[in-house]
Amino acid sequence: MIYITRRERFNAAHRLFRKDYTDEENLKVFGKCSNPNWHGHNYVLYVTVKGEINPETGFLMNLSDLSRIIRERIVEKVDHKNINLEVDFMAGKYASTEILAESIWHQIADDIENHGARLHCVRLQESENNYVEYFGE
Amino acid sequence: MIYITRRERFNAAHRLFRKDYTDEENLKVFGKCSNPNWHGHNYVLYVTVKGEINPETGFLMNLSDLSRIIRERIVEKVDHKNINLEVDFMAGKYASTEILAESIWHQIADDIENHGARLHCVRLQESENNYVEYFGE
Amino acid sequence: MIYITRRERFNAAHRLFRKDYTDEENLKVFGKCSNPNWHGHNYVLYVTVKGEINPETGFLMNLSDLSRIIRERIVEKVDHKNINLEVDFMAGKYASTEILAESIWHQIADDIENHGARLHCVRLQESENNYVEYFGE
Amino acid sequence: MIYITRRERFNAAHRLFRKDYTDEENLKVFGKCSNPNWHGHNYVLYVTVKGEINPETGFLMNLSDLSRIIRERIVEKVDHKNINLEVDFMAGKYASTEILAESIWHQIADDIENHGARLHCVRLQESENNYVEYFGE
Amino acid sequence: MIYITRRERFNAAHRLFRKDYTDEENLKVFGKCSNPNWHGHNYVLYVTVKGEINPETGFLMNLSDLSRIIRERIVEKVDHKNINLEVDFMAGKYASTEILAESIWHQIADDIENHGARLHCVRLQESENNYVEYFGE
Amino acid sequence: MIYITRRERFNAAHRLFRKDYTDEENLKVFGKCSNPNWHGHNYVLYVTVKGEINPETGFLMNLSDLSRIIRERIVEKVDHKNINLEVDFMAGKYASTEILAESIWHQIADDIENHGARLHCVRLQESENNYVEYFGE
Repeated sequence: MIYITRRERFNAAHRLFRKDYTDEENLKVFGKCSNPNWHGHNYVLYVTVKGEINPETGFLMNLSDLSRIIRERIVEKVDHKNINLEVDFMAGKYASTEILAESIWHQIADDIENHGARLHCVRLQESENNYVEYFGE
Repeated sequence: MIYITRRERFNAAHRLFRKDYTDEENLKVFGKCSNPNWHGHNYVLYVTVKGEINPETGFLMNLSDLSRIIRERIVEKVDHKNINLEVDFMAGKYASTEILAESIWHQIADDIENHGARLHCVRLQESENNYVEYFGE
Repeated sequence: MIYITRRERFNAAHRLFRKDYTDEENLKVFGKCSNPNWHGHNYVLYVTVKGEINPETGFLMNLSDLSRIIRERIVEKVDHKNINLEVDFMAGKYASTEILAESIWHQIADDIENHGARLHCVRLQESENNYVEYFGE
Repeated sequence: MIYITRRERFNAAHRLFRKDYTDEENLKVFGKCSNPNWHGHNYVLYVTVKGEINPETGFLMNLSDLSRIIRERIVEKVDHKNINLEVDFMAGKYASTEILAESIWHQIADDIENHGARLHCVRLQESENNYVEYFGE
Repeated sequence: MIYITRRERFNAAHRLFRKDYTDEENLKVFGKCSNPNWHGHNYVLYVTVKGEINPETGFLMNLSDLSRIIRERIVEKVDHKNINLEVDFMAGKYASTEILAESIWHQIADDIENHGARLHCVRLQESENNYVEYFGE
Repeated sequence: MIYITRRERFNAAHRLFRKDYTDEENLKVFGKCSNPNWHGHNYVLYVTVKGEINPETGFLMNLSDLSRIIRERIVEKVDHKNINLEVDFMAGKYASTEILAESIWHQIADDIENHGARLHCVRLQESENNYVEYFGE
């Protein structure tokens, strides 16, 4: 069993808030992340897959396939976008890093299995001081 | 003559566009940075000051003063904000990294002189792949 | 189950040595880390907590609470301090990175549980070339 | 149980290819990594060991021993070398990051056990965008 | 006057040697960098351009143009290549970082002028411990 | 004219204070950096030299010579040491980053000239948020 991690990056705007809260209530719970005029981040995404080394190639999975899956299914949908308003797989959800990481998992897990590996971890870094990890369960 | 650099960080949303352009024209000139729903960055700001070492303290300038000036005059105004809509010293200007760096210079230069040093460089990093420097002239 | 990691930093002096050893014996076992005049590091501390996402907020745990716990219980006690001489929760212990990481765990685990998450890992980086991890068992 | 990670670095040339493939077939499967004239990387190697803290020293294992094992058994054999042509423990194997990581494990595991710790993970980073991890099974 | 820096990366193999030296002489002058079987690096290239901000766009120069120039004239020619054997603009030259940086300058300076900016600095990083800068004179 | 930068690192303890101040006065001027029990840092030192490329070697200066000069004249004297108490070239001086950078310049400038290059800049980084540069005048 071997593990490979691929890093991809995207820049996006978002806001943390509940529609049923007033601006004051949102400020109290979500702090400055609730700014109604949005703020944004340079997100760094690490996707780890696992499986057996293919004896034909010495690869677990071709990294160019893994990179293409992440770019097509995630980066092209979120890069230079507003996560709350424009990302189909985040529709109706909170735009927290936790839920974004979990949603990225479900967006790519099947396609990775179709390429002979299994998704192990989605790590999403929002700033140099915090990141979220989701292992699928 | 000695040079000291202080790093501070902020997260913000912005958009590159001209009001007199259509969305298509903005897309052609500014690319995905013109998204009308905004996008954002983790900006990293490096402020370099220069001057003589104070023989009383061994300091060019107290770093806690430099950090306070940057935080009061810049970070508190841009962090978790929309640069196009909410930042007083960017009103009526394009929200490009070039103009933001230049505007940060004018926002802090005098206050640094009042503390016995001279502003040498404002470096503003928008992503790991690009940054802007302004030396005041 | 989701995992969130928060990074905090502190600078401190320390020394590795046994009181019942001579300076020569300490030098043999602990190398230059046993210097009786101390040396120091920029420590980087990563605290990982785990739990369920709160459906009310989209958060596992408010990051500002996690940051406050780490700063109040750890950073304020060790930052710009001498780990051997001044840190209450290290009294009578060796100031190795291993024991410091383990001690940080016991210093914050309960308070994190009181905020609805569980402590998963304390990672303490002493230099760019080495770090220690403790998972509580 | 405590975990310690040591980082070491080396620069090397390599090529991904199968001898029984034509250059065109190698290009199709391995892309530009199959260049017959070689290319190279700054590899970053992280070795994680685990075990109990020694109550005599406060150490899991003396880091200078761990560093010496990695340098003698790995770095001196691969640094500024051609992985396909010159590295004894890679003879007859593909020079993929996966197989290199796995081979590094078998090269150092026993020696680490002889120093009172157990090898937990070999992480080998080929570029800022990808790394491989092997846990021994 | 404003300065913008763009970062691009490439991986390549090279060797430092003189044809008129024996292997022993090359080893004495160039150390392990003279290995006849090659070694390699993850090179990081920073290109800094300078000029006036264009009042129409708020840009010094469109970063996508700068990135395209660097990729077309440099990265496509050196990435996953052997610098001594395969790079047209290095033919007949030593493959030292100094000469590579200088050669990159002459490869891109004119094209940058054609886009309204002036080349200010080529910085080429060969490892985390060393880099070269060339300012064109 | 070409510029080369070499990075070296050291860990040390220090304290900012004036002997003629009380502890309270020192605390007021130097903050927590005045702790009488010391604190410490992982210092990162960048030394930049300049000159002409030697046509015999393609080098400005052999990097192994530059590294050796820095290690013999600086790192061996400050690494795992107390800057205030044990470093000969800092005797009788404040242990501020400014003065340490300036003193490092005078410690290595002549030896670099003896190897055919000229010292251009000493950059000394005390933490990820601040560094000092000295250019010799």
